[in-house]
Amino acid sequence: MPLAPGSTIGILGGGQLGRMLALAAARLGFDVVVLEREADSPAGRAAAKLIVADYADETALAELASFTGVVTYEFENVPASSVRWLAARGVKVAPGARALAVAQDRFEEKSFLNAHGAPTVAFAPADTPQEAYQAVLNIGVPALMKTRREGYDGKGQRWVERVADAAAAFEALGGVPVIVEAAADFVRELSAIAARGRDGTTAVYPLAENHHEHGVLRRSLAPARVSKVLSDQAERIATRVLAGLDYVGVIGIELFEMADGRLLVNEIAPRVHNTGHWTQDGCEVDQFEQHIRAIAGWPLGPTHAIAQVEMLNLLGDEAEAWAKYAAEPETRIHIYGKRGAKPGRKMGHINRVKSL
Amino acid sequence: MPLAPGSTIGILGGGQLGRMLALAAARLGFDVVVLEREADSPAGRAAAKLIVADYADETALAELASFTGVVTYEFENVPASSVRWLAARGVKVAPGARALAVAQDRFEEKSFLNAHGAPTVAFAPADTPQEAYQAVLNIGVPALMKTRREGYDGKGQRWVERVADAAAAFEALGGVPVIVEAAADFVRELSAIAARGRDGTTAVYPLAENHHEHGVLRRSLAPARVSKVLSDQAERIATRVLAGLDYVGVIGIELFEMADGRLLVNEIAPRVHNTGHWTQDGCEVDQFEQHIRAIAGWPLGPTHAIAQVEMLNLLGDEAEAWAKYAAEPETRIHIYGKRGAKPGRKMGHINRVKSL
Repeated sequence: MPLAPGSTIGILGGGQLGRMLALAAARLGFDVVVLEREADSPAGRAAAKLIVADYADETALAELASFTGVVTYEFENVPASSVRWLAARGVKVAPGARALAVAQDRFEEKSFLNAHGAPTVAFAPADTPQEAYQAVLNIGVPALMKTRREGYDGKGQRWVERVADAAAAFEALGGVPVIVEAAADFVRELSAIAARGRDGTTAVYPLAENHHEHGVLRRSLAPARVSKVLSDQAERIATRVLAGLDYVGVIGIELFEMADGRLLVNEIAPRVHNTGHWTQDGCEVDQFEQHIRAIAGWPLGPTHAIAQVEMLNLLGDEAEAWAKYAAEPETRIHIYGKRGAKPGRKMGHINRVKSL
Repeated sequence: MPLAPGSTIGILGGGQLGRMLALAAARLGFDVVVLEREADSPAGRAAAKLIVADYADETALAELASFTGVVTYEFENVPASSVRWLAARGVKVAPGARALAVAQDRFEEKSFLNAHGAPTVAFAPADTPQEAYQAVLNIGVPALMKTRREGYDGKGQRWVERVADAAAAFEALGGVPVIVEAAADFVRELSAIAARGRDGTTAVYPLAENHHEHGVLRRSLAPARVSKVLSDQAERIATRVLAGLDYVGVIGIELFEMADGRLLVNEIAPRVHNTGHWTQDGCEVDQFEQHIRAIAGWPLGPTHAIAQVEMLNLLGDEAEAWAKYAAEPETRIHIYGKRGAKPGRKMGHINRVKSL
């Protein structure tokens, strides 16, 4: 460390985040090896080498380890055992096992956050229908019940409107361990994309304001219009979270802005994040290069905004309107190379850019 | 046409220009197939697929054609016969055969330029020692003798200081057909990076000011400080050249600024160009995306500068100083993934960025 250009970086996962990480790594002179289950994937087609295997396949992990000294992942549900397997063989996996463990369990995550001065809504775990009932009773309704593990983009969660519905909701989520969260009466959803280098230095991008539809991010506006007090608060939270996890790489921190001006952390994602895509056209060093810099032991790059950006996700068949977007002078196009446009699937995004 | 994301684009050549084209194409959702002689190459490691073969190998060309409807090249010495072979099978090759023919022969090139109102230095062709003598006598000394074909970065050319040396210079260049050029008493070397879409629209980037060492580009400053009269003159030249070649794609036009304010064309390169690398960090759409947009039949993107850039080539072992550059907040790093750092070899470049 630091890792020199010409070295190889491994990425677990072949989706769009892996693809954009691979493109950023290539620009800096790195080769990328992707380990991914599917033979045909967005990141696989942008990498120097592709290993097709399950993320827990030890032969594949050994092959990955033979190529590369640094491995990262593009999604937080990669098996913790794979990360431990690689780390035990001297491969530097970043972000590390601690970040992954915290991010993979919503109860661990919120417990960690509160313990490190990053406030959240009230919450309680429940492993049985009885505990679920008690948790909803304690938290109050409406409450949001989520599986502790897995789930993304609104999947694996449901609202509980009446205490009497708690046990049924628990069963509907599969009878697996859950977390019950108080409803956050927020005025705005924001997010902080932050990075921490191997030397412990941190850098936080300007906040993004995010709008979701049906549990999926629709658009981000960045830099969000926020007071200095608010952005300082976000920076404090980000710094505490990064230090608490002894983190290396880029993290996405989803925030609720409350009516009283407080920020609560909704969730953290130990990876580059959809709400950070605006940095590709709004910053000198985007979140993808920043992540590669961090895990490679390079100094972090600048995070200030050089433009005002509206990021719009292209879901399902919306990416078919690429020709319209290509004709807009202010619009930068990012399309992921996914083969099938299922409804709601993230196929690409655009960044509409205005001068600050 | 236009070519939709998800389609495949072919690139002849596996060097750094091919690599940066491949990265730009991937961002827009295209797959890239590279045809390259070497099994291990900068572009090959950034492409979805690599075909290792000679550029004239018809089996390889047929395989390339089976994947892709649009093929481009990263250097002008690709065999014209390969381009004709592909075009005859319905593959759209851009830039086309005319641009390639003109760019591959320095006499054809200068003749074309003068015929289209793009002034050059005086020149004369010579196929024998006697003709070489006569040409130098007519042009005057010092004169620059260049092989008509091949040669780059100062290779395949020599200065003739005395008329009596003409025949010896001709022999020293291999006894092949040459062109004798008058010395250009320029005050500055500039270049125009321009693009023309399939619909005939053109777009010209701000001029770059270029500094060479030992025949190799050392640095570019862009946008160059030039008068409106000068930039209008450059735009006129670029538009004429592009229209005259019925060009599709990005072209590099090297210019001499003379003491009297005239611009002469030194040479044209039918491809993305080293003096256009500044656009990666100085423009919203860089020359690589612009080239992909043009050959794919997309509308051209904006070409105005959003920053002041100093582009510095990293030659030979200079790229080993990457850690120093990585620590400079204003410096963006582009390293090509070449395996061997021979003296003078282009291994990467940096763009030092300042606000306008």
